[in-house]
Amino acid sequence: MTHEHDAETVVDSPDHWRDEQTQRIVQRIDDLRQSIDNVDMAIIALLAERFKYTTQVGALKAAAGFAPADYKREDYQMERLHRLAVDAGLDPDIAEMYREFVVTEAKKRHRRIAEAGGDPGILDIFA
Amino acid sequence: MTHEHDAETVVDSPDHWRDEQTQRIVQRIDDLRQSIDNVDMAIIALLAERFKYTTQVGALKAAAGFAPADYKREDYQMERLHRLAVDAGLDPDIAEMYREFVVTEAKKRHRRIAEAGGDPGILDIFA
Repeated sequence: MTHEHDAETVVDSPDHWRDEQTQRIVQRIDDLRQSIDNVDMAIIALLAERFKYTTQVGALKAAAGFAPADYKREDYQMERLHRLAVDAGLDPDIAEMYREFVVTEAKKRHRRIAEAGGDPGILDIFA
Repeated sequence: MTHEHDAETVVDSPDHWRDEQTQRIVQRIDDLRQSIDNVDMAIIALLAERFKYTTQVGALKAAAGFAPADYKREDYQMERLHRLAVDAGLDPDIAEMYREFVVTEAKKRHRRIAEAGGDPGILDIFA
């Protein structure tokens, strides 16, 4: 997992940690990154729960012969997440990208469950 | 926000709520959707906090002349989120898609801050 590094100046460049002001900025960025990492840990845990729930929905839908997609539900989610984003001070475009991401992935998994005859076990490697 | 509905059977189709077993399945799906909506509410709040932190990082990086991207940081996040996903029972591919989404959006915003001479106010409509 290494990348070709270009000639840009980055926080991790020790050459640029010399003067005191830059050191203070790097320290502040490190503190913020700790908080960002904590947020990511919480979101990963919540995404794990979300996909456990949607896996159950997928199995129930397959059992009842329902299609993976539900446009009324999607419209509801779209409007709700837009409103929640504005309330939380988040750009609603980000909320919509989040929604598209999780709904698309959940639907893919629902299709796999339906194709496996309603058996959510095909996803069990991470269940 | 209406869609062209196709001929698929969906949970919201009242025609299909007739028999008792299907009614029970629809009730169970509704319960799960309530939990999914709660998870989404928590994630939207956390994403709002995450972008507030990354906006601050963007302003600090612009002030110090750092580039928006940090490949060492990205490698660290990639490996960490993979590990956290496995621990949480989440498909690591989902964690990687999440990471790409938030990092890509954060970097776009960092570039906008840098182009505005380090002023995070250009993002303030949602701050």
